[in-house]
Amino acid sequence: MLKANENYLKLRGSYLFSDIAKKVAAFTASNPDRSIIRLGIGDVTEPLTPTIIKALKDAVEEQGHHESFRGYTPDLGYDFLRRAISDNDYKARGCNIEPDEIFVSDGAKSDSGNVQEIFSSDVRVAVCDPVYPVYVDTNVMGGRAGVFDEAKEQWSNIIYMPCTAENGFTPEFPAEVPDLIYICSPNNPTGTAMKKDELQKWVDYANEHKSAIIFDAAYEAYISEEDVPHSIYECDGAETCAIEIHSFSKNAGFTGVRLGYTVVPKALKDVDGVSLNTLWARRHGTKFNGAPYIQQRAGEAVYSAEGQKEVKALVSYYMENARMIREGLKNAGYTVYGGVNAPYIWLKTPDNMTSWQFFDHLLEKAGIVGTPGSGFGPSGEGYFRLTAFGNHENTKAAVERFQTL
Amino acid sequence: MLKANENYLKLRGSYLFSDIAKKVAAFTASNPDRSIIRLGIGDVTEPLTPTIIKALKDAVEEQGHHESFRGYTPDLGYDFLRRAISDNDYKARGCNIEPDEIFVSDGAKSDSGNVQEIFSSDVRVAVCDPVYPVYVDTNVMGGRAGVFDEAKEQWSNIIYMPCTAENGFTPEFPAEVPDLIYICSPNNPTGTAMKKDELQKWVDYANEHKSAIIFDAAYEAYISEEDVPHSIYECDGAETCAIEIHSFSKNAGFTGVRLGYTVVPKALKDVDGVSLNTLWARRHGTKFNGAPYIQQRAGEAVYSAEGQKEVKALVSYYMENARMIREGLKNAGYTVYGGVNAPYIWLKTPDNMTSWQFFDHLLEKAGIVGTPGSGFGPSGEGYFRLTAFGNHENTKAAVERFQTL
Repeated sequence: MLKANENYLKLRGSYLFSDIAKKVAAFTASNPDRSIIRLGIGDVTEPLTPTIIKALKDAVEEQGHHESFRGYTPDLGYDFLRRAISDNDYKARGCNIEPDEIFVSDGAKSDSGNVQEIFSSDVRVAVCDPVYPVYVDTNVMGGRAGVFDEAKEQWSNIIYMPCTAENGFTPEFPAEVPDLIYICSPNNPTGTAMKKDELQKWVDYANEHKSAIIFDAAYEAYISEEDVPHSIYECDGAETCAIEIHSFSKNAGFTGVRLGYTVVPKALKDVDGVSLNTLWARRHGTKFNGAPYIQQRAGEAVYSAEGQKEVKALVSYYMENARMIREGLKNAGYTVYGGVNAPYIWLKTPDNMTSWQFFDHLLEKAGIVGTPGSGFGPSGEGYFRLTAFGNHENTKAAVERFQTL
Repeated sequence: MLKANENYLKLRGSYLFSDIAKKVAAFTASNPDRSIIRLGIGDVTEPLTPTIIKALKDAVEEQGHHESFRGYTPDLGYDFLRRAISDNDYKARGCNIEPDEIFVSDGAKSDSGNVQEIFSSDVRVAVCDPVYPVYVDTNVMGGRAGVFDEAKEQWSNIIYMPCTAENGFTPEFPAEVPDLIYICSPNNPTGTAMKKDELQKWVDYANEHKSAIIFDAAYEAYISEEDVPHSIYECDGAETCAIEIHSFSKNAGFTGVRLGYTVVPKALKDVDGVSLNTLWARRHGTKFNGAPYIQQRAGEAVYSAEGQKEVKALVSYYMENARMIREGLKNAGYTVYGGVNAPYIWLKTPDNMTSWQFFDHLLEKAGIVGTPGSGFGPSGEGYFRLTAFGNHENTKAAVERFQTL
């Protein structure tokens, strides 16, 4: 008789953004004349740039002719894209990552959710708190989470590493040594980023304990400071302990285009010497059929000289929003973090309000929608996330409303 | 310490197509003057049609402007596509499948590999033999396969249902009742299709035993006979026992475009009443981030009047190849199956040759590359697969070579 996966049944409802949507809908229903500014969701708003549009159209055109039509894509990615990634994102930074260590996919969310599959169901997982929920939920699905403690709002078998103002939002080594450590830097949701020496300590720790780090570099393009690494492979020894996940969503605006990649170095082995590069290749070849040809040409175009210029302009556009929010809120007396190497601003709620109290306050008094920090984990309580992905006009208006709150 | 997933380590090497490639490379190296005709791999060769190209380009253009740019896609698919699928593939055939029972994805291979995740790791799985290897390999990864018996070439916990000329390539109810039954019709690799009354028996069997059927309908567009169902939901009661997987690869030529969908009816529950529709939605929302907007517009265009005309022309083109192969080989004295409702011809190897002996014979004597039936499972031994996905000229030449063998 048919039985559902018991691990899936353990999953908690993920109501954060639907709860927000319901509250906003109720507010607009009773205040139809009030204008709402949305700084809640991390989706880009600027259109694709001309070089990307041209690459997409050219690739589409190729697919319409016998002589240039391409059918099944290579499971692991086209050589032209894997080479472009290796050259531009790694070798140019002194990281020796070869094309056959790069796996092209339909996006960083899929990869960050699927990557746990290649590990044993009894590896001990550590995550930062607050955290991007996909890391935790997919480990619940993979049977590694144990039982949920309602009071603590935590899973019994997951190791949580609090990241708060007290520790500069940088995780500390936990009491128990984890086997698999998720680190996202620049960070979602706190908008802060680890310095190279901080990340090096984690690489050394992982190598010493034969653990692995899943390094989510989705926001890498937003780094503005010199001592913040763009890749974990800038740290010595990372190729024996780290997997790195990349997105084209936040640099080139591919949230609806869907393209990403993951690096699994050939030197990364489990405790018995099993190659994780080989296992990930096998997963890709069995449960995935390659990213689309036209998307991979668009990815290649991101690395062209024109593409890079356009990406930099996009990033600057959003980072100008980040600057406006950060400085505007500071001037209005708020304590703010992030927004220097990431498109997120993480603010301390004023007057000891909870994250949800501040959400209601901000919506009612200023018509601004943000994201309650507690939605990302218990250590997010008392914090609030604003994104820089709006347009200048709305962002400026939001900051003005904050200042008159 | 880091441990790899022990189930992944059990996987057998998948050497079929790489072994073929090696043999062909060796042959061409020693016979540089001989021309090779490839009828081995199931990839389409005709370019995308004008209506699809236009839809792709229009969607790309939209992504380049503020007013029409779309970011994150809905995890489960855009309403416009889910509605088009519901109307055209289901309601038009009298099947009451609603848009919220349709989950758009990046292709049938991903779905057919991922679908096992929502079931318990101890459900008993049944597959046809020969079979598309993804069904088996992903259940090995999911921990349901047991140990591999080298002599039998079978997994200890998988139930194999032989499909040979003796039973008309239709699976019979196995001695032990399975919980999860994979059926692909029209079938890859045998090219045969189940009649409606045959499939109805399986639906009744699954409902009686509270089992589920994973119905792979990837080749549905090739059905030419009246009594072959296009969807399992044409059978009474299928909505309480069946999941159906669809592809845009073989009808509209999307092998490199990547788009598919899976139907999980709301009436489908596990033995404890758990909704599998809800679990699949949760998987899609957690480990996937939606199919790209431009691909979904191309999928929608497949259902337009012009799109349907073009799809029919594509299918007719390949089915003319199937007819040429089927009739040509029959005339040359071969025993052939399939090719009437599917783009595959499954032939009995002559003179009691093994599948691989015939592969070598055909390559050496005629310069034709096909796929040894034994590569799809032990009951494929003594059979050989040819595909109709070439062009007319090569297919005609191949048939002539067969006739002079």
